[in-house]
Amino acid sequence: MGVSGAKEFYKGIGQINFEGKESDNPLAFRYYNPDQIVAGKTMREHFKFAISYWHSFGGHGSDLFGGGTRSFVWDEYKEPIRAAKNRADAAFEFISKMGFDYFCFHDFDLVQEGETFAQSELRLATMTDYLKEKKNATGIKALWGTANCFSHPRYMNGAATNPDFNIVARAGAQVKLALDATIALDGENFVIWGGREGYLSLLNTDMARELDHMAQFLTQVRDYGRQQGFKGGFLLEPKPMEPSKHQYDFDCATTIGFLREYGLEKDFKLNIEVNHATLAQHTFQHELEVAAKAGMLGSIDANRGDYHNGWDTAQFPNNIQEVTEAMLVFLKAGGVQGGGVNFDAKIRRNSTDIEDIFLAHIGGADIFARALLTADKIITSSPYESLRAQRYSSFDTGKGKEFEDGKLNLTDLYTIAKENGEIQLQSGKQELFENIINRYI
Amino acid sequence: MGVSGAKEFYKGIGQINFEGKESDNPLAFRYYNPDQIVAGKTMREHFKFAISYWHSFGGHGSDLFGGGTRSFVWDEYKEPIRAAKNRADAAFEFISKMGFDYFCFHDFDLVQEGETFAQSELRLATMTDYLKEKKNATGIKALWGTANCFSHPRYMNGAATNPDFNIVARAGAQVKLALDATIALDGENFVIWGGREGYLSLLNTDMARELDHMAQFLTQVRDYGRQQGFKGGFLLEPKPMEPSKHQYDFDCATTIGFLREYGLEKDFKLNIEVNHATLAQHTFQHELEVAAKAGMLGSIDANRGDYHNGWDTAQFPNNIQEVTEAMLVFLKAGGVQGGGVNFDAKIRRNSTDIEDIFLAHIGGADIFARALLTADKIITSSPYESLRAQRYSSFDTGKGKEFEDGKLNLTDLYTIAKENGEIQLQSGKQELFENIINRYI
Amino acid sequence: MGVSGAKEFYKGIGQINFEGKESDNPLAFRYYNPDQIVAGKTMREHFKFAISYWHSFGGHGSDLFGGGTRSFVWDEYKEPIRAAKNRADAAFEFISKMGFDYFCFHDFDLVQEGETFAQSELRLATMTDYLKEKKNATGIKALWGTANCFSHPRYMNGAATNPDFNIVARAGAQVKLALDATIALDGENFVIWGGREGYLSLLNTDMARELDHMAQFLTQVRDYGRQQGFKGGFLLEPKPMEPSKHQYDFDCATTIGFLREYGLEKDFKLNIEVNHATLAQHTFQHELEVAAKAGMLGSIDANRGDYHNGWDTAQFPNNIQEVTEAMLVFLKAGGVQGGGVNFDAKIRRNSTDIEDIFLAHIGGADIFARALLTADKIITSSPYESLRAQRYSSFDTGKGKEFEDGKLNLTDLYTIAKENGEIQLQSGKQELFENIINRYI
Amino acid sequence: MGVSGAKEFYKGIGQINFEGKESDNPLAFRYYNPDQIVAGKTMREHFKFAISYWHSFGGHGSDLFGGGTRSFVWDEYKEPIRAAKNRADAAFEFISKMGFDYFCFHDFDLVQEGETFAQSELRLATMTDYLKEKKNATGIKALWGTANCFSHPRYMNGAATNPDFNIVARAGAQVKLALDATIALDGENFVIWGGREGYLSLLNTDMARELDHMAQFLTQVRDYGRQQGFKGGFLLEPKPMEPSKHQYDFDCATTIGFLREYGLEKDFKLNIEVNHATLAQHTFQHELEVAAKAGMLGSIDANRGDYHNGWDTAQFPNNIQEVTEAMLVFLKAGGVQGGGVNFDAKIRRNSTDIEDIFLAHIGGADIFARALLTADKIITSSPYESLRAQRYSSFDTGKGKEFEDGKLNLTDLYTIAKENGEIQLQSGKQELFENIINRYI
Repeated sequence: MGVSGAKEFYKGIGQINFEGKESDNPLAFRYYNPDQIVAGKTMREHFKFAISYWHSFGGHGSDLFGGGTRSFVWDEYKEPIRAAKNRADAAFEFISKMGFDYFCFHDFDLVQEGETFAQSELRLATMTDYLKEKKNATGIKALWGTANCFSHPRYMNGAATNPDFNIVARAGAQVKLALDATIALDGENFVIWGGREGYLSLLNTDMARELDHMAQFLTQVRDYGRQQGFKGGFLLEPKPMEPSKHQYDFDCATTIGFLREYGLEKDFKLNIEVNHATLAQHTFQHELEVAAKAGMLGSIDANRGDYHNGWDTAQFPNNIQEVTEAMLVFLKAGGVQGGGVNFDAKIRRNSTDIEDIFLAHIGGADIFARALLTADKIITSSPYESLRAQRYSSFDTGKGKEFEDGKLNLTDLYTIAKENGEIQLQSGKQELFENIINRYI
Repeated sequence: MGVSGAKEFYKGIGQINFEGKESDNPLAFRYYNPDQIVAGKTMREHFKFAISYWHSFGGHGSDLFGGGTRSFVWDEYKEPIRAAKNRADAAFEFISKMGFDYFCFHDFDLVQEGETFAQSELRLATMTDYLKEKKNATGIKALWGTANCFSHPRYMNGAATNPDFNIVARAGAQVKLALDATIALDGENFVIWGGREGYLSLLNTDMARELDHMAQFLTQVRDYGRQQGFKGGFLLEPKPMEPSKHQYDFDCATTIGFLREYGLEKDFKLNIEVNHATLAQHTFQHELEVAAKAGMLGSIDANRGDYHNGWDTAQFPNNIQEVTEAMLVFLKAGGVQGGGVNFDAKIRRNSTDIEDIFLAHIGGADIFARALLTADKIITSSPYESLRAQRYSSFDTGKGKEFEDGKLNLTDLYTIAKENGEIQLQSGKQELFENIINRYI
Repeated sequence: MGVSGAKEFYKGIGQINFEGKESDNPLAFRYYNPDQIVAGKTMREHFKFAISYWHSFGGHGSDLFGGGTRSFVWDEYKEPIRAAKNRADAAFEFISKMGFDYFCFHDFDLVQEGETFAQSELRLATMTDYLKEKKNATGIKALWGTANCFSHPRYMNGAATNPDFNIVARAGAQVKLALDATIALDGENFVIWGGREGYLSLLNTDMARELDHMAQFLTQVRDYGRQQGFKGGFLLEPKPMEPSKHQYDFDCATTIGFLREYGLEKDFKLNIEVNHATLAQHTFQHELEVAAKAGMLGSIDANRGDYHNGWDTAQFPNNIQEVTEAMLVFLKAGGVQGGGVNFDAKIRRNSTDIEDIFLAHIGGADIFARALLTADKIITSSPYESLRAQRYSSFDTGKGKEFEDGKLNLTDLYTIAKENGEIQLQSGKQELFENIINRYI
Repeated sequence: MGVSGAKEFYKGIGQINFEGKESDNPLAFRYYNPDQIVAGKTMREHFKFAISYWHSFGGHGSDLFGGGTRSFVWDEYKEPIRAAKNRADAAFEFISKMGFDYFCFHDFDLVQEGETFAQSELRLATMTDYLKEKKNATGIKALWGTANCFSHPRYMNGAATNPDFNIVARAGAQVKLALDATIALDGENFVIWGGREGYLSLLNTDMARELDHMAQFLTQVRDYGRQQGFKGGFLLEPKPMEPSKHQYDFDCATTIGFLREYGLEKDFKLNIEVNHATLAQHTFQHELEVAAKAGMLGSIDANRGDYHNGWDTAQFPNNIQEVTEAMLVFLKAGGVQGGGVNFDAKIRRNSTDIEDIFLAHIGGADIFARALLTADKIITSSPYESLRAQRYSSFDTGKGKEFEDGKLNLTDLYTIAKENGEIQLQSGKQELFENIINRYI
């Protein structure tokens, strides 16, 4: 798989095929068929499924109470560049076998950060070249790149919002290199996730000043990217908390408000993660709607949290009902703008077999495919859409339309109400809507 | 207390006095002394404590699993106007005995809604006149008025965001009357809380259209109010959920973003409720900061939720540590803009003695007073403020200042970082900040 | 439908039929076929679906912020007995049209509580006779009865755990009558739900004394029931909170521990409600397992809560994945012991059409039926069961078996471990298990 | 400080003294005065404050999104025994300077786990000897020891509840050595925390079999300990989740039920952690009460979680109101049985100064001391206790007493209720109770 004929890392596992509903082979898709056309596009185009470099090739299964449980077969070398090349070979082999077209990466997923900034720069350049070759050989592309400005201790008080300017400068330098690498790899988007942009305690924090700094930082990133000819989307990724006690990009509404306040709304869209929605007490569907209304539904990080404690467990999606409802919003919004569906999900700490990572991605892709097929049928064959539109029909003509157009003032409403008398209640029919969804699953 | 010498409803309870630390009399303030000057203003001016007409004179203690437990002595009449006048007499007696200056009301707190719109209009006008007399006699004023557009079944699908235009018109008419009443009573602010503006199910909801309607509605309210000469603040009250599954005014950041999107940010500020913050997984302090940064810290609804399940239990505030941290933000923001501190809190369902409502307000006012005194001392006598400012000093001069002023681009940051080498970590000193707070409590 | 040929309340809606997968008629079952045999029993026998008298015939849609939205056509009379008979007629008509066999009731669902205890006693006796006739005429039975010892203000501080003995006595008297009625109606179980048995504040509570009182109370109830010849199950219903801040029957484990501590475990089993599990941060499946292990899986209250805030919204079940996992536990446990599946669920406040209550029950029953069919297939046709058993096979023989049998002491384990060396990790295969579930949905 | 005159690790920080209320020196106690007598005992005896070896001398500040931020000055050696001795020297220096008497430890806090079991055994023996010398030299003792059966990958599927018997045996061997070490160090208690005893997914879990294994395991541990002459308390530590999705020792009630079911209740008590209570949606006070009622209030792990998302952040306690309420329960229960107050808390990841760990412990100990003083005054000087007792006085004599004694059956209660008529409601006076607490803080 590797540029120079690397060895096979995932031995015993072949190309994952679409086998259809009758097969019980757990190493085959049942619903995901990349070339099948749904709602005018192939599934491949709808989803642009991407693999998370960090979870799938770098996640060893540690948690807060224990160390890693997986030792990857490609982790045979200690020397950073050799190790990184092995990891890249494994990644491309895996993506090829899955039949996917994309990966997503942080700068220091590609190669271990150096002792010095200069060393990191050199390592990144080397690996960018290596990945370029692999991209050219396989057609597998970067859906997006990003800079990891949260893991290193230097970012413990924030990156762009650090109270120490020198840390802010360091974050800026790191983002520059990550953006350069993304551009070099023809990455389609550049993501910024502010896991440390927020606070552990409000007591020692100057929130207003930090927000101004964050906006200044993003402005400079945007300007630099555009100067370098980057045409892709900048994507902010909302998350309400963890690792910070509170993060500034709390949810879609907050992030959109921030972008507009600082004049960044033309270049930035959102990368929406399922269990970041859960953490913020929103449904995923809600967050998609909010972003779609603002024209900022940029990309999706697919996973699921724990619905009983709300935690960010980043498991693979597996609930057909929830994903179907999300695909309804997705289809109605015309899909994502420039992005795709990145599996930002990890297999469980105790999933230590070589096939587990395949099973997880097959399950996740299949749920999305099945949900898309179901949602499409609901839209095209059921009364769902017309029932919903009908609820708002009083605003399509007459006084309702005049109100919508701003032609009625409060006194007009008063006059209308006085004439109306009491109004007949209209059932919201929620149970009917829910039954329709279930009839099509 | 009533205009015409009404009988005493709260027999056996006299004027609540400030008795200071040595007294154990639970029917006296220990810390709240309205005329004491703190940070340049009297406590009376800082807080403008207000009584919630609904909880204190209309709340009978029902919950989802049981009916009311309190029968108020002023509930002797069934005829709506007589009942309403009795209630008003009780309210003014209570507020006088507490030594407070303000009340807050919904339209149908003042008098029971009529069978028809016309009847409601007439009743409201009658009671507005009655309250005007009482205001003139006592000096007790309305901190704010509002329209209850959530209790009546007609609003089950929303008020301003109802899918049926005729309900929207009815809500507009109701707000007009409530605003008229507020203006007539020299009310200092007008609040809008959208408890039904949101959805029970996203499946049957057109969120974008509903938000446009809400903005249109608020625009008309604002325009009408200004035309009528209302100079006070319009206040939106964020709450994330309940009674809706999801409310559009989720939290301060969301509400500010909405107001700016629709050009309403000049006339509207926020009314921030403690346990609405809790429900949204924010601290109260966080919400105050967000509003203060936007210049929209309009007023406060004081209470507390349940910190173990996050629920909106609307209990009286009683945690000195939390309120002290809030008062730190309050003082640094220069207090609220135009509003005050309204006790939107209810005594527990099983608190059925006549004195319980006094005990509750005494406890709440005392916690605020003690917290204000403590926060003032922390600001004026401790190293708290200078420690916090010191953390950000790298932005006060030199390269940090240039960054803040937008004079450094990404390449400049790269150059600085390259020269810097690794940077010394600086402790956030959270435990020190926390200890300082506790040293002053 | 009524004993004496009562009028039809649900006009325009006929008997709900099983129509199978190809029909899109929302007023027909697709999966629930009462006479279909699954795992050796008919669906009718597996589920014993019951209707909640309170939600379905008494719930008018009020919430904490607004009054009822539904006026039932059978609410035409004010006189309590006439009103109660109408309601009973409606109930039996509805249950018949649904094709169900059971209902569940609180004493004061059957008829409005009287002004005095004696009046209540008389009313209950009258309605018990009326329901007996209807039962005999239709074959529709009580799955369980219970006493509502939470709604009346007298129970604001608890029923069996009230600090005032006279309230405890009153609760005892009320339970006696409810149990008498249940016995008279050949009710198959008697439920006790302690919504007020707990506390609003620990500060004023003597928890140990209250728990002793609760046990004493249950002991007397058990003894009385058995003396009256009641052979059915006594069922405690766990719920962690609401309406109390904290309820003593927090969850299954707590309730089982309590029953055993006081020697009640032979007569009492559990009635497990889905969204009471959610409230306690458990999955429904977990609670079923805990009860099954103790031999106390008595009955099920089917509904769903809100998974984003954890609230007790008591909506109808609609998530096929969750219910399938629950049915796996259900089938493996051999079903419920003596109870059934009661739809303790309410249509949404804004569901105001006559058909909405049918749609809700159809959706709920269908999800259970589909889940049962799926779970049965998983157990009988997939590797699910053998994969799970295989994980524990080291305890089936040899040293593992000796350990399980208590034949190895700590020193033996030490010796074995010392000889073993490091042990090969075995994947938990969670993603495979999850994919299997989804392959069969 | 070390046995052989080790160097000073915490340079520049002297013995922490009690300085009283007037001092603002953050490196002095204000309230904690070990020799001050409160309620008949010195503070030293009430609290037996202990330092957590793991957080304070082994916690480097890593979180799920980033590596450690602290490099301790005693981490100069790589060789395990030298490193461990340095750490022990630092620990004893720190505890001495704080004026505390105790530490708590896991086996592999004392020294790094070996490559093989035999190597670990040897290392532990060496360090046990070293600590024995230090104990003899300083009088600083182990409040409790425990075995870390959760960090090593081998425990990813559980320790005592692992599906693989060989892992269970390994856990048993490890517990044996940890218990041997605890006995050798005259440790006063032995704790078992089952962080991996539970499940990540119920789908692949045989809960009943795992619980039987857990009981069998604890039985063998108990028997071995008693055979070795261990007279101290065995303590189980409840926690509902994390790192497992669900842990068997969910909360106090669940754990007590488990111990009784398997006949372990005579030897085991509970070690109750504040933010484990929060995680389970209980107050800390509630958990203390539950344990006290069962006679199982063994020891306390002091910290605090995040009250807005419920997470286990293990911060130092700092809320005077909450700790005061806890100390009320503590004093009424007669304190803990055999245990003490262990600061199982960590300074924040960005607290990187050498003094931060002192500030944190000073703040924590002071809150406990102030709370104890306040609670004692509430009990001895306020009407709090008599108000609470008065609520239950109807059970002290007459019919209430007869009920409590089991002398009234359900028919008796019925007769009493029938005679009683409606009963006067009695206010729960929650606001009064809360105000009393605040009057004494």
